[in-house]
Amino acid sequence: MNPDPTPANPFALPFDELDGAAAFTSEPVLVAARDVEAFAALTGDHHPAHLDPIWAADGPFGRPIAHGLLVLSQAVGTLPLDPERVIALRRLRDVVFKRPVGVGDVITVACAIGARRALDERTGLVDCACRIHDADGRLSVRAVIEVLWRREPASVAATDGDDEIAPVTRDRAGELRVLL
Amino acid sequence: MNPDPTPANPFALPFDELDGAAAFTSEPVLVAARDVEAFAALTGDHHPAHLDPIWAADGPFGRPIAHGLLVLSQAVGTLPLDPERVIALRRLRDVVFKRPVGVGDVITVACAIGARRALDERTGLVDCACRIHDADGRLSVRAVIEVLWRREPASVAATDGDDEIAPVTRDRAGELRVLL
Repeated sequence: MNPDPTPANPFALPFDELDGAAAFTSEPVLVAARDVEAFAALTGDHHPAHLDPIWAADGPFGRPIAHGLLVLSQAVGTLPLDPERVIALRRLRDVVFKRPVGVGDVITVACAIGARRALDERTGLVDCACRIHDADGRLSVRAVIEVLWRREPASVAATDGDDEIAPVTRDRAGELRVLL
Repeated sequence: MNPDPTPANPFALPFDELDGAAAFTSEPVLVAARDVEAFAALTGDHHPAHLDPIWAADGPFGRPIAHGLLVLSQAVGTLPLDPERVIALRRLRDVVFKRPVGVGDVITVACAIGARRALDERTGLVDCACRIHDADGRLSVRAVIEVLWRREPASVAATDGDDEIAPVTRDRAGELRVLL
């Protein structure tokens, strides 16, 4: 008997079926020099550790490194979030930049579903424990990302009109109900 | 007597002079549609909450919202980090996305220096408590960002050769010494 070669995408599962969900592992992702330059332009973070090869060669890491927030953002971007399940990032509870990612390095992301808790009948919060490794398998970043998960599929939740997406997480001020 | 109209940039202060440092407040920053599109292309995060106005209009926020990590990255990009002081982001200890930032909204960042602790004679860790507000002054994101701070200016630290930047935070494996 062959094991299932394609485990279910955990980020497309119903909230109530997340126990024992398979971990997700990304394809390798190149953190290219052009990505670092684009991120600097987008954010205004032009620290020479990222952009100046001469400064960086004499700096604490010996070479240009990617912005930590770029690496984290690229890692989150690899997660196949089903928009009918995962509504939004809610919290980054602990992100540790353990080892810098060099410009031109390749990363791989592993992400496991952790604790979850229902907020109401329609939404819940789910911890996603992510580990970003470099091409040699060393841990570069670890992060616990809490995401807001819709508990019902849109087609079931839409019981109050033509809305395909139930606006259950929005109050009159546009603020998430689950504010901490 | 006129008060000093330009308080010292806290991100350029020596580690041992951070007590009582003035808080930093950014200029307003536009989170433009082109920024959201660029961030999606850079990271691969094409969630329709950010990019599809029709999907977003029926979604939980009623309009397209910026990626939380883009907002955070743009906020960090406003901080005038002196590269001779601030070496790297070390940790995001608690980031809460309290209120979504709409595409086309303007944010302002306030950041105060918090707790700090020396690691050795040359480096320390400093908490930076950041609050990102929308154009109406409502809190959108709060975050505690721990940064690695050089304790000595480069010109003083360079006692062991021609290095202008003391490589005190790098061990032979290229890993930060202060790993958690």
